[in-house]
Amino acid sequence: MLDTSGTLCTINIGDFYTEAGATIPDVTIAYQAWGEFRGDNLILIEHALTGDSNVTEWWPDIVGPGKALDTDTFCVLCTNALGGCMGTTGPASLAPDGHPWGSRFPAVSIRDLVAAEKQFLERVGVSEVHAVIGGSMGGARTLEWTLLYPKQLTAALVLAVSARASAWQIGIQTAQINAIEHDPHWNNGDYYNGTAPLAGLAAARRIAHLTYRGELEIDERFGTSAQPGENPLGTHRSPTQRFAVQSYLDYQGVKLTQRFDAGSYVALTEALNRHDIGRGRGGLNKALASSTVPTMVAGVDTDILYPYHQQEHLSRNLGKLLAMAKISSPVGHDAFLTESRQVDRIIRHFLLLAAHQAEDDGVFISDRV
Amino acid sequence: MLDTSGTLCTINIGDFYTEAGATIPDVTIAYQAWGEFRGDNLILIEHALTGDSNVTEWWPDIVGPGKALDTDTFCVLCTNALGGCMGTTGPASLAPDGHPWGSRFPAVSIRDLVAAEKQFLERVGVSEVHAVIGGSMGGARTLEWTLLYPKQLTAALVLAVSARASAWQIGIQTAQINAIEHDPHWNNGDYYNGTAPLAGLAAARRIAHLTYRGELEIDERFGTSAQPGENPLGTHRSPTQRFAVQSYLDYQGVKLTQRFDAGSYVALTEALNRHDIGRGRGGLNKALASSTVPTMVAGVDTDILYPYHQQEHLSRNLGKLLAMAKISSPVGHDAFLTESRQVDRIIRHFLLLAAHQAEDDGVFISDRV
Repeated sequence: MLDTSGTLCTINIGDFYTEAGATIPDVTIAYQAWGEFRGDNLILIEHALTGDSNVTEWWPDIVGPGKALDTDTFCVLCTNALGGCMGTTGPASLAPDGHPWGSRFPAVSIRDLVAAEKQFLERVGVSEVHAVIGGSMGGARTLEWTLLYPKQLTAALVLAVSARASAWQIGIQTAQINAIEHDPHWNNGDYYNGTAPLAGLAAARRIAHLTYRGELEIDERFGTSAQPGENPLGTHRSPTQRFAVQSYLDYQGVKLTQRFDAGSYVALTEALNRHDIGRGRGGLNKALASSTVPTMVAGVDTDILYPYHQQEHLSRNLGKLLAMAKISSPVGHDAFLTESRQVDRIIRHFLLLAAHQAEDDGVFISDRV
Repeated sequence: MLDTSGTLCTINIGDFYTEAGATIPDVTIAYQAWGEFRGDNLILIEHALTGDSNVTEWWPDIVGPGKALDTDTFCVLCTNALGGCMGTTGPASLAPDGHPWGSRFPAVSIRDLVAAEKQFLERVGVSEVHAVIGGSMGGARTLEWTLLYPKQLTAALVLAVSARASAWQIGIQTAQINAIEHDPHWNNGDYYNGTAPLAGLAAARRIAHLTYRGELEIDERFGTSAQPGENPLGTHRSPTQRFAVQSYLDYQGVKLTQRFDAGSYVALTEALNRHDIGRGRGGLNKALASSTVPTMVAGVDTDILYPYHQQEHLSRNLGKLLAMAKISSPVGHDAFLTESRQVDRIIRHFLLLAAHQAEDDGVFISDRV
């Protein structure tokens, strides 16, 4: 029932009920999978905010035959998140009335994203997951997996995320939502039959990108250099006379508008604002302590979006800490995507611990890379 | 000629020529000063981006009789920055044609702000400055003072700033300028006879505020709490149903619009983008090494806007380092304004070192607080 050819497939999972009490009828989940599924060898990958199910593209050195996520051994599966725009139902999808959801699309939480994925797994006949792995928004979903469906999981690897949104994260994420809302084309989210708010989406991405990248890395690359052929030091300021870093950020912004929908960006950013594993579970530390899934935690030393102390907090409080690892990099948050060699080592180590865990559930292993 | 009553006064300094080659005719500089001027006892304070000459308001525990900046001993002087909106000529001022400068106001650099201030001091008959002190944009101006007019200075205290804008700073500052530019009322800066771009200015301030405050401090205060009476977890996202931190940032944004002009915000943010003490001086480290003014450097351990390693860089390379100090605070960048007790100690220590320097110019003192 699961297509493991790596091609993008879609499955209708029926109606979905959100944590906040709304109904999304007839939800479609898109997915890709690689490697034969043998019942107990499924590894579920959770993508980040503007990521998608094509893991072999955004983690090219990590997934494949003989790689850390070895598709000769494992069936590696990734679904597109609910609320996104890569095949799974989101604001740009058609509602039952045949018009795009737009502003009518309900707010979704990280838990909703996970619950929809679980509903999908049931539809395709998967009842057991060897491991869930994710970074950033994918890490938030991985954490929620361990608390919502612990019995289906052998182990989890959580990268570059926190137990809940920090106030700073909510603030900077809201600044991004505001940038989109202030685009005159936004129209409260109902723009799908008109012009898309591309300038707002690009502005949001420029802000976001500065939280994804370490200031040392950006500064080493650009410093105060002028964009070639432009003079940012003229007698009057001009948006066409830029510093190199301004041009770089403009490029990052435009690039996102070519592959991502503003409505989905707002929906998933809002999901991140609502990320809080303590909600309804007696608070953060009680929720973490209650976790029964062996979980490994990793973070990046220069991450300003999810500072490393947030992963240390997870490691101190998780009920069953498998191991803790630090990615050392000037890149900042995005290092969980770019530092392939370190991520490779972390995942291989994690899978060894998880295999050991599966063999001997009585022995609890805590370890450092 | 210098009014030291603490009231806001203005002086016409004549025409001003910018670093980039523009002319601003008939520039007015506004200032406030406290404490009798005796020729060799002037302390010049440089305010931050949206600060102003009223130092006794934004550094209430620092300036006054018996305080660290003792107005019984010193004459404490602060001018409003060129390009600002607190009495000194800026984009909202009337150009010679009787209309507001608006988009015609030339781009100004940090060096221009300092050069205009020097021109002002000449007009009021001040030829000797005992010390220049400033944080953030004020720190950038203080650094430029030491390189532009070393012979007029005994010593300098530079707080929470860097030798030049980092690429990250240019990026996040440009995001703020963009927020204002995208306000439909901005009109390329020519809005003074119409509606001001207040929503854009508030959006800029919300982004800026997140760089002024440490994430730990904001998180301790707000976490994921809802604003009382609002529900940020409803079935649909709504700007009127907020997390507490969103309400806090909204308040910070609106508060700035009530006291600051968007055109000045853009002009002075652009000056920060152009901050580079290495420009035309053979690069950063050569410029720093050439400094002959005994300079003390201080920074904040949790500053994400001007990370402490930037002050360490200054301390390693400045030609005449007087001392180095670290402000320890969860507050982040703004700690140079809020941690009065630590700033008090730093300034008292600095003034002792500066006095010693004035007495015995042959002895060079390097020291840690």
